Amino acid sequence: MSGWSGPPPTVVDVGEFGLIAELRAALPDAAAESPQVPIGIGDDCAVWTPSPGESVVVTTDSLVEGVHFRTDWTDPASLGHKTLAVNLSDLASMGAVPRLAVVTLGLRGDESVADLRTLYAALGVLAARTGTVIAGGDIVRSPTALVLHVTAIGETVGGRVLTRSGARVGDVVAVSGTIGASGAGLALLGLDPDDPRRQAATADALIDAHLRPEPRLELGALLLRSGATAAMDLSDGLLGDLPKVLAASRVSARVEPGRLPVAAAVRAIFPERWAELAMRGGEDYELLFTAPPAAFATISAEAGRLGVPVTAIGEIVAAAGPPEVLLVDGNGEARPAGSGAFDHFG
Amino acid sequence: MSGWSGPPPTVVDVGEFGLIAELRAALPDAAAESPQVPIGIGDDCAVWTPSPGESVVVTTDSLVEGVHFRTDWTDPASLGHKTLAVNLSDLASMGAVPRLAVVTLGLRGDESVADLRTLYAALGVLAARTGTVIAGGDIVRSPTALVLHVTAIGETVGGRVLTRSGARVGDVVAVSGTIGASGAGLALLGLDPDDPRRQAATADALIDAHLRPEPRLELGALLLRSGATAAMDLSDGLLGDLPKVLAASRVSARVEPGRLPVAAAVRAIFPERWAELAMRGGEDYELLFTAPPAAFATISAEAGRLGVPVTAIGEIVAAAGPPEVLLVDGNGEARPAGSGAFDHFG
Repeated sequence: MSGWSGPPPTVVDVGEFGLIAELRAALPDAAAESPQVPIGIGDDCAVWTPSPGESVVVTTDSLVEGVHFRTDWTDPASLGHKTLAVNLSDLASMGAVPRLAVVTLGLRGDESVADLRTLYAALGVLAARTGTVIAGGDIVRSPTALVLHVTAIGETVGGRVLTRSGARVGDVVAVSGTIGASGAGLALLGLDPDDPRRQAATADALIDAHLRPEPRLELGALLLRSGATAAMDLSDGLLGDLPKVLAASRVSARVEPGRLPVAAAVRAIFPERWAELAMRGGEDYELLFTAPPAAFATISAEAGRLGVPVTAIGEIVAAAGPPEVLLVDGNGEARPAGSGAFDHFG
Repeated sequence: MSGWSGPPPTVVDVGEFGLIAELRAALPDAAAESPQVPIGIGDDCAVWTPSPGESVVVTTDSLVEGVHFRTDWTDPASLGHKTLAVNLSDLASMGAVPRLAVVTLGLRGDESVADLRTLYAALGVLAARTGTVIAGGDIVRSPTALVLHVTAIGETVGGRVLTRSGARVGDVVAVSGTIGASGAGLALLGLDPDDPRRQAATADALIDAHLRPEPRLELGALLLRSGATAAMDLSDGLLGDLPKVLAASRVSARVEPGRLPVAAAVRAIFPERWAELAMRGGEDYELLFTAPPAAFATISAEAGRLGVPVTAIGEIVAAAGPPEVLLVDGNGEARPAGSGAFDHFG
């Protein structure tokens, strides 16, 4: 699995400037150059000209070894993909179009240059596929842990973005794709390799969902143009993230756990934990959004054509007190869900 | 000196979301809000509208404990200032105007929240003074080292930037302020506190030059509008950085060490090392630039009025072979300088 076994030379062997040249060469052309980004890698700053009338959308996210990933659980290519994907997911959640990114690597120095080239090439493939130019960055020494840090920059379409604060009473609450697969994949990685659950035919797909999330850029654009009222990406689990939308919008939500789109593989491999994985698993990088019913119908039809189905899981209701998530059981009875975003220090 | 002795609570005590609220409250209003940045801290992305017709200028720089700073050598406020300053210095070197920044903190969890508030407040003071909105960021756990990561975003003035590639034969080579003070300050911090050199009346000013560099934003704007041909900021020392300008511009330079603006305090405290500190010391964050002689005369006069004097230290000449720095001695004889940028892994 791990794939961190590249041959010499190491980073120390080639030095900082040698490594910059190697990484630049590892990028696909379409990720390294663009007429819209006339100045990129090699100067003090990158320069980019947004489309006239559009605003700039900025997000930043880091992956730290031992906190966000383990090198014995992921391979260089998957890590490179995910590093950019989690940032593009934030742009997707606002309906923005990615344009460029700057990447900082924090390295010990004993890493294989070949592994880092593999990491960067995979990051570059996702960049090229999404129209993102890797416009520079920084390489610094990091004493103990590999650190990957990205700032992704995009632009609005029609001058607007989706935020967390627009959910209104009566809106449908929905999610894209399935939820819980990433959490299930992470749980599988934590099992003994001989555990029969690791051997399930569908285990690799769940692990892949954890290691290589797909940013929902086309869906985000669809949500923006089709009248969604609020959106965010699911990084901290449904019960971690939905309360952020509710707080920003000052409303509550009724959610029917029976309607959650949970992959059959998650239910099959974790029959006693699937609901928890779906609601609190985190790192799905699917989009959570709200929309009036008519708009939701349009979105649902078009999302199917994009190959990214969306599922209604509940509705927005007026908040009687502080905004909260109400879980509705099969008898129609509602009880407040204990919220709980992932807290790095919790 | 260190000042990292804030009272409880710690980061673990207040949690990730409690800390975000504390840090946001520590920012001056002018650093936290702006009509140009309608969406900042608290959503998935920041949104900013550049001035019509201008391009976006992006830079990113990290400070890692044990690599770029030591908590027994710097205090929280100085570290907050420097974290933003080194990024703004990159914008200054291209003649860009800063507009917003996103800040990522990598924390162990045992840090005092009061210390981090102090750090953030100082960062915010520099942000407010320079028109930079702190528009969000990220807080992650970092297993062993405190990490500060900033991406700063600015915009062009008149659609143009200064790059490293415009130096032409006959141009004056010049630097702003004095050089070597930061390297001398760092050397002083490494001495025993009882060392008589630490007791010199001017020692604190040199240490301050290392801990609290001032980004030369007004000077960068002046260089751009007054016909400078190339510029960069001095982070890796004159003999580390000037070769980057020469390589990008495909020219060589003759530099007269006798003309280097080295503070009297550096010469006095380090009589045997001052030239090395000035040429290889690094982290001066002054601007290195080239300009035709007539433009240099204009720049010199106006820079004096800004309170940031500039000094001609040599001239651009045709490269006989690979671009190189030629050091000219008192007899007019030139010899190639061994170059040497700071290499994180050298």
